[in-house]
Amino acid sequence: MSDVNALSDLATSDVPPTPAPLMQWNAWGVAAGNKPLSPAVGTLLSQAFGVQVSDGGRPSEDAVILRDSTLTADHVAGLGELVGAANVATDKSARLLRAGGKSTFDLLRRRSTDPQNAPDAVLFPADHDEVVAVLQYCSANRIAVVPFGGGTSVVGGVDPERGGSDAAIALDLRRLNSLSAIDPISGTARMGAGLTGPQAEELLGAHGLSIGHFPQSFQFASIGGFAATRSSGQASAGYGRFDDMVAHLKVATPRGTIELGKPPASAAGPDLRELFVGSEGAFGVITEVTLRVHPVAERTDYQAWSFPDFTTGAAALRAVVQAGVAPTVLRLSDEAESGVNLAMADKAGGAAVTSGCLAITTFEGTAAHVASRAAEASAILTENGGTALGADPARQWEHGRFNAPYMRDALLDSGVLCETLETATTWSNLGTLRGAVTAALSEALTGQGTPPLVLCHISHTYPTGASLYFTVICAQKDDPIAQWTVAKRAASDAMVGNGGTITHHHAVGSDHRPWMTAEVGDLGVEILRAVKNVVDPAGILNPGKLIP
Amino acid sequence: MSDVNALSDLATSDVPPTPAPLMQWNAWGVAAGNKPLSPAVGTLLSQAFGVQVSDGGRPSEDAVILRDSTLTADHVAGLGELVGAANVATDKSARLLRAGGKSTFDLLRRRSTDPQNAPDAVLFPADHDEVVAVLQYCSANRIAVVPFGGGTSVVGGVDPERGGSDAAIALDLRRLNSLSAIDPISGTARMGAGLTGPQAEELLGAHGLSIGHFPQSFQFASIGGFAATRSSGQASAGYGRFDDMVAHLKVATPRGTIELGKPPASAAGPDLRELFVGSEGAFGVITEVTLRVHPVAERTDYQAWSFPDFTTGAAALRAVVQAGVAPTVLRLSDEAESGVNLAMADKAGGAAVTSGCLAITTFEGTAAHVASRAAEASAILTENGGTALGADPARQWEHGRFNAPYMRDALLDSGVLCETLETATTWSNLGTLRGAVTAALSEALTGQGTPPLVLCHISHTYPTGASLYFTVICAQKDDPIAQWTVAKRAASDAMVGNGGTITHHHAVGSDHRPWMTAEVGDLGVEILRAVKNVVDPAGILNPGKLIP
Repeated sequence: MSDVNALSDLATSDVPPTPAPLMQWNAWGVAAGNKPLSPAVGTLLSQAFGVQVSDGGRPSEDAVILRDSTLTADHVAGLGELVGAANVATDKSARLLRAGGKSTFDLLRRRSTDPQNAPDAVLFPADHDEVVAVLQYCSANRIAVVPFGGGTSVVGGVDPERGGSDAAIALDLRRLNSLSAIDPISGTARMGAGLTGPQAEELLGAHGLSIGHFPQSFQFASIGGFAATRSSGQASAGYGRFDDMVAHLKVATPRGTIELGKPPASAAGPDLRELFVGSEGAFGVITEVTLRVHPVAERTDYQAWSFPDFTTGAAALRAVVQAGVAPTVLRLSDEAESGVNLAMADKAGGAAVTSGCLAITTFEGTAAHVASRAAEASAILTENGGTALGADPARQWEHGRFNAPYMRDALLDSGVLCETLETATTWSNLGTLRGAVTAALSEALTGQGTPPLVLCHISHTYPTGASLYFTVICAQKDDPIAQWTVAKRAASDAMVGNGGTITHHHAVGSDHRPWMTAEVGDLGVEILRAVKNVVDPAGILNPGKLIP
Repeated sequence: MSDVNALSDLATSDVPPTPAPLMQWNAWGVAAGNKPLSPAVGTLLSQAFGVQVSDGGRPSEDAVILRDSTLTADHVAGLGELVGAANVATDKSARLLRAGGKSTFDLLRRRSTDPQNAPDAVLFPADHDEVVAVLQYCSANRIAVVPFGGGTSVVGGVDPERGGSDAAIALDLRRLNSLSAIDPISGTARMGAGLTGPQAEELLGAHGLSIGHFPQSFQFASIGGFAATRSSGQASAGYGRFDDMVAHLKVATPRGTIELGKPPASAAGPDLRELFVGSEGAFGVITEVTLRVHPVAERTDYQAWSFPDFTTGAAALRAVVQAGVAPTVLRLSDEAESGVNLAMADKAGGAAVTSGCLAITTFEGTAAHVASRAAEASAILTENGGTALGADPARQWEHGRFNAPYMRDALLDSGVLCETLETATTWSNLGTLRGAVTAALSEALTGQGTPPLVLCHISHTYPTGASLYFTVICAQKDDPIAQWTVAKRAASDAMVGNGGTITHHHAVGSDHRPWMTAEVGDLGVEILRAVKNVVDPAGILNPGKLIP
C-alpha cells in the first residue's frame, strides 16, 4: 500500500514531550487542580439539596481491595519478552490507576471498600510493532486487551472487563508519544496515539502549528483516544470535530496492521477510516494518527453575549452557523446554567446572578480574518436578540474551561450527586429533545426523593443541528450508583426516543451499549460484529464495549 | 429505531417533478445537446493527431445485437407481481438503454456489432418497499441486481454483470422521485433516490432551497447515485462533497431495511453511514436520502484569474482554502487545458489562446457574505501571483460546464480517443502526482504510436490537498479499447504508486476494482467482504463492482 505520509515527511521531531501527569486514581486530574467547595457554595448546596458538606468518604489507597490478578506468571513473562519485563506492571498502584475511567459511576466505584475490578496487568509498549505483537500474543492466549490512553472516559470505555478471556490487561499507550512527521504545506502532522492533548500541542507548537482540539478532557486525554471515541472539542465550530481532522490512521489488530485514509478525500468506496474512528478499541488499537493541523492563530478575539432566553439564543447560534461565519468557539448556556455557573464559580457569593442566557464566541486567525468574521457574527447575533457583553466573560469562560470535572469531585465528596450527559439533534428538534431529556431526568430523580437541578448548554453547532450537554446535580442517596442508574437510563431512553443520538462526543463504552441497537438497528449491529470478527476473531479487544 | 426525520417533517411535496430525459443509448446526454465539431476544430485535430474527421461509425440501434435474456418467463411474471407487470421491461430498447454507463470504454462498446452485454430485464419499482421485495425475490432466485439511476457512471458502475447468478436485472429507480419532507429550520430535505439533479433542484427550488451539488453529470445523474458513488460537484469548495451533505440514508437490502445517520453528528461508534455512502450498490440499494440543503443564494459573484503557471496557481488556491475563505467554486486549469479549452470551444479559431493558467472563483450567499468573501479571496489570490480577468471568463465557464461529455462523443466519432480520469492527494504531493500520472499516460500512449495531449485541472480543494482531473486526447488506433486499457492501467498504477487515491469522485465500479486492495489493504478488502456478506449473503448486489 502506498504511503502518502512518507511523501510529505518534510520534517520530523524526535524531541520528547514534557512527561504527561497521570490522573489521580480516585478523582479527576491532578491533586494540584482539586477545588474544595467554598463555604458560600457549601451553604448554597445545603439550602438547595439539604445535604451537609463534609470531607468526603474517599477511602485511602491502602483501604482499597482489588480483585486478584489472574494473569499467570508465564504470561507475565511472555508479555515481558515482547515489551520488556520492566514494561509489564502488576503492582496494585499501576492496576488501580487503570481500574476505570472518570464517569461518576467510576468515581463512586473507586470509593468502595469491596473488591474492585482492575486490569490483571498493565503493559507499556514502545511502538506499533510491539502493540501488534502483544495483540497477537493475547489473541492466541485468551487475554483481553483494554487500550488505555488518558483514562478520561466517562462512559465505561476502559472498564477492565475480561469478556470470555481468562485475564485482561490494560495497554497503556503513553510511550507512543512522538511527533514523527509534519507537512506544513498540506497542514498535516503524524502523531503517536499516546500523546496527550498538551503534549501534542507542545510538539506542534515548536513548529508553529496547532490542532485546535480542546475538549474538557484536553489536559489528560490522548490523540488515540480522541480518534477512538469521535471526540469533539470546544473549538469545534472553527476547527471541526476530531473525526473531521483525522486524515490517516494506523491501527494494530490481532490480524496485523491496517492503514486507512488518504488525504484529502476519496471516492474509493466506503470510507473504512470512519469504521475505525469511533471503534473504541473494539476493532484494534490506534497507534498513529495523521491529523489536519493549522498555523498557530495570529490573533484571538473574544466576545460574550446575553440572550433573553435559550430559544432565542439557540436561534441566533443557528443563524450564525448557517450563514457560514465560522467562529472558533460558539456556545450558549441555558438560563439555569448561566445562573449556576456564576454562583458556583470562584466568585460565588459575591457576583450577582445575571438573568437570561450567556453565549460565548471566539474568533481565531489572521487579524483581517478575525475582524471580518467577528463583525459578521456580531451583526447576526445582534439582529437575533443578542446583547454584547464584551470580552471579559468569554475570557473567564476560557480560563476555567477545564475545571468543571474537579468541581464534580468536590460535590461528590459533599454528598451531592453530579454527572453530565450529552446528545445532539437537528435545530428544529432541539427544544423537543431538551425538554424530553430534562423531564426524564427530573422525573427519575424526583421520583427517588432527590429533585435535581438540570443545566444545559449548546457547545457544538452544525448547519443542520447542535449538541445538548446536560449537567445534573442532586442530593446523593445511600446507593448513589443505583440512584444514577435509574436517571441515566431514563435520560438515554428519552434521547433515542426523541430524535437524539445516544452520544454526541462522549462515545459508547459500556454505559451506552444498551442503546446501540436503537442507534444503528439490528443490521447495523450485525455489521459491527462482522467487522470485529475479521480483525479480532478471538474477541479479545476491549470486551463489553460498544457492540451489543 | 427512532426516526428523527419524522420530527422534522415540516412540509412535504407531492408535486411530481418534470420528467427526466433518458440519455442516448450510444452517447452522452440528449440528442439536442450533441455538439458536432466545427470545421476549424476538425482542422486542428487533423494537424495535431493526424486523424481525419469523419461522421462517426456509430451503428444504428437496429444493427446492435444484445445477448439473449436469460430471465425466465416465470421470473418475469414473479417480478411483475412485485412491481406490476407494466414495470418489467424486456424489450431491446429498454435493455440497451441500461447496457452500461458512459465511460469511453462504454461508448466504444456500444459501437460494436458483436453481441453486447445487457441486463436481462429492466424493473421500475415504485417505492422502497417494492425495492426490498425485489431484492428478496432476487436473492432467493439467483438473479443479480444492478441499481440504475441516471446511468452516468464512467467507471463501469452499472455494467450488467451476472456474477454467479443466472440472470441480471437493472433496477431503474426513476419512479422514486418525490421530495417527501423538508425541514427549513434545520436545512434538510428527504428525497427519493431516483430524482435527477435538475428534478431535485426543481422541487427544492419551489421551497426556496437548493442542494448546491453540480457535478458534470448533474443533468442526468440521480440523488441515489450521488450518494452511492461519493460524488463531488463543481461547487464543492462552498457546499462540500455529496458525502458531506448526506444526513440520513434509507437502504434496501436482501436482509431488509437499514437506516443510518442522525443529524448533525454522533459519537455512537463507527459511522456506518460512511459504509453505505460509496457502497455503489454492492451493499444495498439506497432508496431515500436526507440531505443538507441551503436557501437559494441571494447573489452570485464571478471572478476569473490568470496565473503565470500551474504551480503558482495551485499555491494560490491552497492559500485561499487554508485561510478558510470558502469560495463556492474554486478551480484552476493547467497551461495546456487553459489553451485547449479556448481552442476547442465554440469560438475556436477566432479567439487567441491565452498564456498561463485560468482559474475560476464564484461566491454565493447574501450580498454581504459574498462581498466579504470575494474581497478576502481576491486579496489572497493577488498576493499569490494572480491577475484578475473579470467576471466574463467565469460566467462562460459556468455556461458551458456540462458540455464536455458531448464534445467527447464528437471526438470519438472523429477518430480521436478522449477520456478523463481523476485523483487527489496532499498539496505537498500534488506536483509529484501530476507529473507521474501525466508521464504514465504519455508513455503508455506514445509507446503505442499515439502521443497524447494531457490536460489537467484542480476542481476540488481542501485544507490538506486537492483533486487532479486529467483529460487525455490522442488518435484512436484500430482497437481503441485495448489502446485505452493500457493507458488507464498505467495511469492507475501511477496514482496508487505516488500517493494518490484511485478516484476522487468517479467511484470504483469495475474499472478501478483492481486497485482497491492498494487503496484499503488486504484487511480492508476482507472487511468489505464481511459487510457484504451480512447484507447480501447470496451475492446478488451489483456483482463485479467495488470489492475485489
